[in-house]
Amino acid sequence: MYEEMVGDRPAGGFSHPTDQEEKQMKNFTFHNPVKLVFGKGTIAELGNLVPKGARVLMTYGGGTIKKIGVYDQVKAALAGVDWMEFGGIEPNPQYDTLMRGVELARKNNRDFLLAVGGGSVLDGAKFMAAAIPFKGPNAWDIMEGKAPIEIALPVGCVLTLPATGSEMNRYAVVSRHDTGQKTVINHEKLLPVFSILDPQTTYSLPPRQVSNGIVDTWMHVVEQYLTYPLDTPLQDRQAEAILQTLLEEAPKVLKNPHDYNVRANLMWCATMAFNGLLNCGGISDWTSHRVGHELTALYGIDHGQSLAVLFPAVLRHQKADKMDKLIQYGRRVFGIQGTPEKTAELAIEKTAEFFRSIGMKTKLSEYGIPPADYPKIADKLQLRGKLGERQNIGVKEVMEILALTEA
Amino acid sequence: MYEEMVGDRPAGGFSHPTDQEEKQMKNFTFHNPVKLVFGKGTIAELGNLVPKGARVLMTYGGGTIKKIGVYDQVKAALAGVDWMEFGGIEPNPQYDTLMRGVELARKNNRDFLLAVGGGSVLDGAKFMAAAIPFKGPNAWDIMEGKAPIEIALPVGCVLTLPATGSEMNRYAVVSRHDTGQKTVINHEKLLPVFSILDPQTTYSLPPRQVSNGIVDTWMHVVEQYLTYPLDTPLQDRQAEAILQTLLEEAPKVLKNPHDYNVRANLMWCATMAFNGLLNCGGISDWTSHRVGHELTALYGIDHGQSLAVLFPAVLRHQKADKMDKLIQYGRRVFGIQGTPEKTAELAIEKTAEFFRSIGMKTKLSEYGIPPADYPKIADKLQLRGKLGERQNIGVKEVMEILALTEA
Repeated sequence: MYEEMVGDRPAGGFSHPTDQEEKQMKNFTFHNPVKLVFGKGTIAELGNLVPKGARVLMTYGGGTIKKIGVYDQVKAALAGVDWMEFGGIEPNPQYDTLMRGVELARKNNRDFLLAVGGGSVLDGAKFMAAAIPFKGPNAWDIMEGKAPIEIALPVGCVLTLPATGSEMNRYAVVSRHDTGQKTVINHEKLLPVFSILDPQTTYSLPPRQVSNGIVDTWMHVVEQYLTYPLDTPLQDRQAEAILQTLLEEAPKVLKNPHDYNVRANLMWCATMAFNGLLNCGGISDWTSHRVGHELTALYGIDHGQSLAVLFPAVLRHQKADKMDKLIQYGRRVFGIQGTPEKTAELAIEKTAEFFRSIGMKTKLSEYGIPPADYPKIADKLQLRGKLGERQNIGVKEVMEILALTEA
Repeated sequence: MYEEMVGDRPAGGFSHPTDQEEKQMKNFTFHNPVKLVFGKGTIAELGNLVPKGARVLMTYGGGTIKKIGVYDQVKAALAGVDWMEFGGIEPNPQYDTLMRGVELARKNNRDFLLAVGGGSVLDGAKFMAAAIPFKGPNAWDIMEGKAPIEIALPVGCVLTLPATGSEMNRYAVVSRHDTGQKTVINHEKLLPVFSILDPQTTYSLPPRQVSNGIVDTWMHVVEQYLTYPLDTPLQDRQAEAILQTLLEEAPKVLKNPHDYNVRANLMWCATMAFNGLLNCGGISDWTSHRVGHELTALYGIDHGQSLAVLFPAVLRHQKADKMDKLIQYGRRVFGIQGTPEKTAELAIEKTAEFFRSIGMKTKLSEYGIPPADYPKIADKLQLRGKLGERQNIGVKEVMEILALTEA
């Protein structure tokens, strides 16, 4: 779960440190051995990246990779490699689909997974990597932390959609139709061994997916940044660097989808947003992600769409607690000049405006979700603890946040 | 050599690309598996980081680690580990000293090196790691690239001086009294397996070393940033993030040497400045480093001191070629507002002012190096190609740069 993304929070919950300690950079470990191969034509390097003698299962989604020529590039690069394929992994990859892939891999003695696609395909492969060698009767136990991951197959990746950051991190998100769950796992054995990022593969993404990816990237940054202030000026600026770059590049990509530089910059932003660096020594929020997963599980709205609705509302609700950082965000990211209070308010407005400018909706009612549903959504969270960087958001506050999406 | 730091420059020299290509992010590979363990009291984790059963040679410098208690912390953390020590590695680590360590390690069958100290101790250990298993008659061949590194012992590190970035990179710099050389090697097998960074170990550093470290960090950033503009806005801002943070933290550390937050921020800046990230897809200069190494080899002035003298002069000399980036640097890092030409000029002045504000000299004459010596310095470079991001700095230009240190 996202609680685990907060590296140093004690397992027993959030303790209230002294004022001085609270501002101090936390102790942390950073270890990210993913090999990134970035640029034009880099899919051709696949043959050198897949271990010699590997028996590869190549996984992909609904077949877009065939339309855009990526499938053929992968096939050419895998000449001489023992590989087979498993397609049909859906957005918000489903446990039952993935378990069919697991069976296929087991039957055919596969020992290396190559995910070709976006975050859903890659997250699916990560889960399969842990599930294939798993001996227990119920592989979902892996997702719920009931079965610790002892071994996992190595996973490589050819990324075609910048958004989740999964190409350089330890996370995977898997969903279940039957139980309505959308669950996150976080484990070092789920780091890809390599990820190939060729920005050209993103030229033909539908605008909706481009905007979803921009919002997801934005949200990975702000969930690790827009909390309360710590004395971590470099990490703050690294976060702001990504946000400023997204603000600049987003309008360009929608106007000129085939601009290599813009695609390259967006792809690099997405990877850098969620590879562990921004959270070095810091604290995190993840409220929007947690609630957003439930909106996706319940209503099928895209992950990015759910975040664009929730985040402005979270900020409205948490304005007082996030005041200092909101002011910094307003000044540095949006260049707002004004009184502190006005700057914070305007920063929230500008955030929603930016989301709307790239075609996102920011109200639940725009998705036909009425206030009568709020209790159902909040209940679904099954909160064992509270959310937010100060652990002060419970069921009641989630309901208030849902209402504030209409503000 | 530093040429190798420029990842994608073709081996045959710099080709002049078209205008459009020139601005494009270059293809790159990023792979940095160093495990960083950062924070208060983290030396205690050594016992878990050193591989089980390792036969450790712990290396250190002139004995400062004994005065500041780090030696005792390391000793306590290595309880139960088979370890011995090799001290006396000097700043600008010397080949003959290191070869004595190599002999000791071979005789005693050491298979893991633990460097405890600053960049010199760590660079020395990196060289030893390659030299210990080397079968040839002349280990210096490793430094000159005549003997490719096939195997190297694993190296771990407890860092006590933030400056070189060696704790998270592939570089080592080794010097030779007898030939007057100071030579750089760059190899992936020289990446530490882990680096422990406890900012508390830096509390008692002499101000001169603190300032040297700040300048070295600054220079690692600008040599990768202040070139000609590419369309790499995120990498640019990540560079500016470090420079802005150094500007803020430098005066604080000289005033309050025991401020944990300031020490932590400076340590993190140094690591992030030279771990490969800033140069992802970019181009580099390295003129100041290349010439600076010769000043250190010839006159024994500190590495940081050499850079503080050279960089403002390099900027004066290259002002026209670096104009666009100088303006960006002036505006974003120093907040200068004015005409482009004035902004560029003021940016150079502000750089020299910053160096002087932390106690650095910025003229060769201040180190007693007269104009009559310039030919000797320039000749010593033994330039096989030209320097600078546009490869337009040869012997004549180096002489002009040396003269401009007095401007």
